[in-house]
Amino acid sequence: MAEKKMVEAITSMEEDFAQWYTDVVKKAELVGYTSVKGCMVIKPAGYAIWELIQHQLDERFKAAGVENVYLPMFIPESLLQKEKDHVEGFAPEVAWVTHGGLQPLQERLCVRPTSETLFCDFYKDDIQSYRDLPKVYNQWCSVVRWEKETRPFLRSREFLWQEGHTAHATAQEAQDRTIQMLNLYADFCEQVLAIPMIKGQKTDKEKFAGAVATYTIEALMHDGKALQSGTSHNFGDGFARAFGIQFADRDNTLKYVYQTSWGMTTRLIGAVIMVHGDDEGLVLPPRIAPVQICIIPIQQKKEGVLEKAYELRDRLQNNFRVKVDDSDKTPGWKFSEAEMRGWPIRVEIGPKDLEAGRCVICRRDTREKIEVPLEQLEGKAAELLETIQSQMLERARARLEENTFCARSYEEFEKIFSQGSGFVKAMWCGDRACEDAIKEKLSVTSRCIPFCQERIADTCVCCGRPAQKMVYWGRAY
Amino acid sequence: MAEKKMVEAITSMEEDFAQWYTDVVKKAELVGYTSVKGCMVIKPAGYAIWELIQHQLDERFKAAGVENVYLPMFIPESLLQKEKDHVEGFAPEVAWVTHGGLQPLQERLCVRPTSETLFCDFYKDDIQSYRDLPKVYNQWCSVVRWEKETRPFLRSREFLWQEGHTAHATAQEAQDRTIQMLNLYADFCEQVLAIPMIKGQKTDKEKFAGAVATYTIEALMHDGKALQSGTSHNFGDGFARAFGIQFADRDNTLKYVYQTSWGMTTRLIGAVIMVHGDDEGLVLPPRIAPVQICIIPIQQKKEGVLEKAYELRDRLQNNFRVKVDDSDKTPGWKFSEAEMRGWPIRVEIGPKDLEAGRCVICRRDTREKIEVPLEQLEGKAAELLETIQSQMLERARARLEENTFCARSYEEFEKIFSQGSGFVKAMWCGDRACEDAIKEKLSVTSRCIPFCQERIADTCVCCGRPAQKMVYWGRAY
Repeated sequence: MAEKKMVEAITSMEEDFAQWYTDVVKKAELVGYTSVKGCMVIKPAGYAIWELIQHQLDERFKAAGVENVYLPMFIPESLLQKEKDHVEGFAPEVAWVTHGGLQPLQERLCVRPTSETLFCDFYKDDIQSYRDLPKVYNQWCSVVRWEKETRPFLRSREFLWQEGHTAHATAQEAQDRTIQMLNLYADFCEQVLAIPMIKGQKTDKEKFAGAVATYTIEALMHDGKALQSGTSHNFGDGFARAFGIQFADRDNTLKYVYQTSWGMTTRLIGAVIMVHGDDEGLVLPPRIAPVQICIIPIQQKKEGVLEKAYELRDRLQNNFRVKVDDSDKTPGWKFSEAEMRGWPIRVEIGPKDLEAGRCVICRRDTREKIEVPLEQLEGKAAELLETIQSQMLERARARLEENTFCARSYEEFEKIFSQGSGFVKAMWCGDRACEDAIKEKLSVTSRCIPFCQERIADTCVCCGRPAQKMVYWGRAY
Repeated sequence: MAEKKMVEAITSMEEDFAQWYTDVVKKAELVGYTSVKGCMVIKPAGYAIWELIQHQLDERFKAAGVENVYLPMFIPESLLQKEKDHVEGFAPEVAWVTHGGLQPLQERLCVRPTSETLFCDFYKDDIQSYRDLPKVYNQWCSVVRWEKETRPFLRSREFLWQEGHTAHATAQEAQDRTIQMLNLYADFCEQVLAIPMIKGQKTDKEKFAGAVATYTIEALMHDGKALQSGTSHNFGDGFARAFGIQFADRDNTLKYVYQTSWGMTTRLIGAVIMVHGDDEGLVLPPRIAPVQICIIPIQQKKEGVLEKAYELRDRLQNNFRVKVDDSDKTPGWKFSEAEMRGWPIRVEIGPKDLEAGRCVICRRDTREKIEVPLEQLEGKAAELLETIQSQMLERARARLEENTFCARSYEEFEKIFSQGSGFVKAMWCGDRACEDAIKEKLSVTSRCIPFCQERIADTCVCCGRPAQKMVYWGRAY
């Protein structure tokens, strides 16, 4: 009964993808709603995924010479206004603090939507000489953007992220760091989240407010929509000039620094759900699964069953994240719940298994069942988790390829997007008017100018003038 | 020259303790100032300490069954007002958001000063049955309190902390959790920060807004002032009644839950500075030192010196946090800097050491120098770091004892506080009027009613009426 209820409660992906997403997020207990509109509670099952992401990403940051810091959450209005494009981009969507205690503030403060201006204000005093460079700082924090429509993980008024902010002596070094961090992001998403990424540059229309160039990694969700998953910006010396961040170089002249920033957010959890999930719920790549192995005792009241389950847990937990579900629910209910929560491996152990000295392993991703002698469990589990991780990436990569199309003419382009979604590779003249026209007509945006360019056609897919670049187009979250 | 400048810049503790603190915080590059009044930048050297605290405290939390979550940073005004004492305690010192984007908000939001109200609002829906209990949740985040006077780490308008919030089926379970977490805090401070704590209960005057009982750990700083270092609150069912948090118990009746909360903050870094620091700067306990061993090459341009320094680093870095200072500064300057930053062990290696196959180890805490054969370096370093950690605690404990006094009469009490500061154990009648009088006359507050009670006298140190409890009194940060 409970089992049936749990399964019934999920809409199928085919029927209504948006509703499926909401159901999974709720039934897998990743988030809760609050009385603060547009803000969510990240519950233990969701936050544990974020902790695993954070831990592994931070490890890669440190290996890349990044140092963590913490800057204030408030930005005085005058500071936000120092860089023209930046304030225009963010001012319409920030939250304003106007009172501290019982007193009105002399100058209102916005809650950081991003911290370029604060880092600039800090670097202005902290950087004096070439010896102080480079600065490669990052912070883990939350930011606020007053979005009108919100969805858990994908778009909320407050979200968790990391934001790296660097300062360099030369333009080349800043550009190198921008690309280094984009590559680090893409590599992390492939290796840890099992999500293949398209790497490329944003068009001027889509770039970050205040950036010279914005680079992005874009992923394809199960419904064919694109998700911008991380960005890395090269600011040139624009912010440095606006804030007066200068250093005495080796030749004893004062020069402006060159800056970058880069960020990834809890949106990554949304990507994991929409790339790997299925009609039974979440499917987690082993590297970010808070529980990698869930042991479910069958007929747990029979002698020796629970004891064996605990013994297996004790054996496994040195190398894996393990849980025994010894609750008083039925095994069927427990299976459904383990599937809903996306735990990569389920181990079933009952009286018959005990007798035969084996257990049954069930993979969450393929639902394949394997009988394993108990003495081989550690080795088999380790091997399977590796296999699951790499096959999840392979399947996601195959789906990305299947859903990436080429359009040589506007007719082809329109036909693909009228029949469905996906990435469409098509040539572009470089003119914003064509981007605007395509968005207007098809609700499709340029996702990026990929690093891997192909010469698909000679003319722009929209206006027919000579083509400059191949662009990935898609409908985006 | 540079060396001299660095040393000169620190005021001695004796001369001016407050200025000494400010100098250390700045010269050890723990924090930076910002244009946001009362908010600080936590720089890499400071944040790395916080990360080590966070990591080791979180490990202990997880072993104690705590799960991490994340709740919004905003609290609607109506939510804050639901518990009467709580709103009175916090409303005067919160920051108010009144506009989101370009629109005024229908209801203003405060930036969380603490999250009891949000957790209650969440638990109200999340808890239905005894099966949902207990909830033992924690979050790592920043909070905002609009303080008038601020000092880095000790009191700032925004600070980092963890806040645990639990819900239980019975009053006893809530009380047990309150004490369990206080003990965990005290143990953490002793074992990791090498700071001995006095554990006890706050008087009603000093307890948390909305709590039935507040427990505290109190430490003694080098200047004889007390620092409240962590608190744990038992709320009874007060918040549950105000917010309507009920569960169906096993007997099928609806009951209110019992709640607790507990927190520690970046203030702990202030405690570390003021308990262990000296006139050369910071002294870090090895367990929270971002660099445990700093290798300083002497005459580093001589053949083989730098190579040997790197070789030692490569050998040591599997087990320790190690750094080679290969900058172009003089060894003397490097020594001063390593001392200022509080790194526990300095390893000196020069051409003569190379020849003799040894190096010189210098302890930061005692400044003792030891010659060590290179092949014994790992073992000796491990042993020394353990010794430093435990001796720092011993010395801090001895200082705490030396500066803890007994006062049997008001004359004794007054005399101690007129001559200096420290903890004073004295009896109290239980009446708030005596606390008020003592604060008024001597700027001294009750720090706690310690768990370890002694019967020092029969009468209250202030009014002479029969004594109820022994209290620790002190001047506090």
